[in-house]
Amino acid sequence: MQSNDTLPATDPATLPTVRMKPKTDARRIRHGFPWVYANEMVTDRRTKALAPGALAILEDENRTPLALVTVNTESRIMARVIDKVDAGPIDQAWFAARFAKALSLRERLFDAPFYRLIHAEADGLPGVIIDRFGDTAVVQPNAAWAEALIEPLTAALAEVTGVTCVLKSASGRARSLEGLDDVSGVLLGKAPDAPVPVTMNGATYMADLMGGQKTGLFFDQRPNHAFTAKLAEGAKVLDLFSHVGGFGLACLANGAASALAVDGSAPALALAEQGAAAMGASDRFAIRQGDAFEVLEAMNEEGAQFDVVVCDPPAFAPARQSLEAGLRAYERLAKLAAPLVAPGGYLVLCSCSHAADLAKFRTACIRGIGRAGRESILLHTGFAGADHPMHPHLAESGYLKALIFRV
Amino acid sequence: MQSNDTLPATDPATLPTVRMKPKTDARRIRHGFPWVYANEMVTDRRTKALAPGALAILEDENRTPLALVTVNTESRIMARVIDKVDAGPIDQAWFAARFAKALSLRERLFDAPFYRLIHAEADGLPGVIIDRFGDTAVVQPNAAWAEALIEPLTAALAEVTGVTCVLKSASGRARSLEGLDDVSGVLLGKAPDAPVPVTMNGATYMADLMGGQKTGLFFDQRPNHAFTAKLAEGAKVLDLFSHVGGFGLACLANGAASALAVDGSAPALALAEQGAAAMGASDRFAIRQGDAFEVLEAMNEEGAQFDVVVCDPPAFAPARQSLEAGLRAYERLAKLAAPLVAPGGYLVLCSCSHAADLAKFRTACIRGIGRAGRESILLHTGFAGADHPMHPHLAESGYLKALIFRV
Repeated sequence: MQSNDTLPATDPATLPTVRMKPKTDARRIRHGFPWVYANEMVTDRRTKALAPGALAILEDENRTPLALVTVNTESRIMARVIDKVDAGPIDQAWFAARFAKALSLRERLFDAPFYRLIHAEADGLPGVIIDRFGDTAVVQPNAAWAEALIEPLTAALAEVTGVTCVLKSASGRARSLEGLDDVSGVLLGKAPDAPVPVTMNGATYMADLMGGQKTGLFFDQRPNHAFTAKLAEGAKVLDLFSHVGGFGLACLANGAASALAVDGSAPALALAEQGAAAMGASDRFAIRQGDAFEVLEAMNEEGAQFDVVVCDPPAFAPARQSLEAGLRAYERLAKLAAPLVAPGGYLVLCSCSHAADLAKFRTACIRGIGRAGRESILLHTGFAGADHPMHPHLAESGYLKALIFRV
Repeated sequence: MQSNDTLPATDPATLPTVRMKPKTDARRIRHGFPWVYANEMVTDRRTKALAPGALAILEDENRTPLALVTVNTESRIMARVIDKVDAGPIDQAWFAARFAKALSLRERLFDAPFYRLIHAEADGLPGVIIDRFGDTAVVQPNAAWAEALIEPLTAALAEVTGVTCVLKSASGRARSLEGLDDVSGVLLGKAPDAPVPVTMNGATYMADLMGGQKTGLFFDQRPNHAFTAKLAEGAKVLDLFSHVGGFGLACLANGAASALAVDGSAPALALAEQGAAAMGASDRFAIRQGDAFEVLEAMNEEGAQFDVVVCDPPAFAPARQSLEAGLRAYERLAKLAAPLVAPGGYLVLCSCSHAADLAKFRTACIRGIGRAGRESILLHTGFAGADHPMHPHLAESGYLKALIFRV
């Protein structure tokens, strides 16, 4: 953690200025767009000299102040709007106000303190992700400014939410784009020495906050878990790419007859088993470690049938270059999964690929189901839960899609 | 109702054939697309002589049979696929099988028998809408074939669901495109002589099944009502274009402090008041009859503030020609509604316009909120409930969108 004397200047009155190039679209910033790209900025020696994450006042080409921004000349997103020009100092009180606003929404949405508390730009903290697991919070400071101001951020987080442990996860892919390291650690309190039980949709998940993916558990699928669980009462469920039991355990909590979780990761499946045990549902829960595509092929040969089949794979099309290959993978997955659904059963197909928009993903899934020779209807289209709000000018960036078919 | 001797032939073995023109895309039909347009069909004298709604075997240009279809030479959708070539006769048993399949889904989704039972193509009955209100069903036979086969359809509906009253609503716009009349009536049993109480999300709605819009009540907003109601605990709610109390009563059922329903229709508001009374919530419910835009302007002058504001207007852009004007109307509505939302409150904006897709509608809303000088984040994007499933090849036809913002 940085000591106070290296903290960037946070009083707008004393901040450096940075400027947009002539003929760039400053109106967009005035209308609320939160990013300025490198090719839109005057990158003079003075700007280049700013430390990564430094605060500055952004001006248009006529030197009219536009917004308080953070600057990172090493990033394609060179400036990120974090407040109005006349915002007070960016200190613990400033962070506390943002956390209070975000918290009031989550407390309205959820009965228990397990949720994404801060979803970056939409919650007024560009590049910052914070997930809350009861008394523990996991911060992903994926932009340089948050790394520089991690001390007042952490203090405000504890002050507003009452969490006693704050962990830093440096696993986010975006950090390298910002020139940041990948060193995780403990920012406050003592790291939990065992997986933390998390309650969601009546199920219990075990989150490994120190060793897990991203922040240890994904909250984004909560409403899609809930919708699927509702269909799964009394059902035999196959949960592919299950991670720590996401869909499978939610279905068991809603009375599924059985759930089989498939994942490539033995540690994730071990956590899923612990979750099932904590729910008293071990007798209805089974795991199978392996590549989901290979497992699907084997099950097709066996002629296995399930009432509900879920595929929640990692992003097959994380970026534009991988879009075509990604869509083919989604289609193949749908084609392999559809035959395992008993007639009148349900097929849940998810994508967390930024590049594959809803229409493209849906077309790939429908084609795959069709190629399997199965008829289907689309019951429900779900997105990430409301604790993952979207900035209005980044609303097309919604990444998570869940399509629920009756087959 | 038609007598048996005028029923169209329903045994595939004895059916006439109709043919697709050379160079039309028969593959699309093989892959499950359910419609053949007039310009794709050979419209010879024999085809023209078919009674509207007649059953036929559709062939490709090489006379290979493709599907069992219904034909209406007066409609732009000249043939609608209703089953495979070798399907049995289209009789009461055939309808009963479709109803049983549709019913099993709804019974899984809902605890009480109030839902859309048949959503046209997706439920295997092209052009047919059936809503169920307990012991009463309201049928919209919006395609000629269903009108011709209304007798076995009605008998099967009563057989499978146990409803004792079946009403026919001829108010659907699509009927005129099929050359059908607009005469509603009673198909089975005795029409209810008073509004029927309908339970949804814990609220009670009064549905006027004989005199109401479409089938008397809209089930499609159910999940969006539920999401909004969750945000409205303790809140002061403004429900614009309320109809029979849709969002407002759902919010009251979830503990809203008050709800004010605005609508142009006095009869609809009277039903909303009856619903509130049936819920024991009259003391928290108020109505204001008038044009929503005028009411919004008046409220803006008064400086009124609400914790939750809902706009669920009729389709401003029902068809492509009205798209631009419709989008401007959505933007204007958002601009007028946003200032009425107290800081940190919620704004729910809905569109049931086919022509305005999600991205266009979202852009109009975000622009309107921005023009009101308010910042917002998008919490949730909702569609029609799962009792309004979509045929996979018509999935882009999803009409209902609900955007829930925090302002």
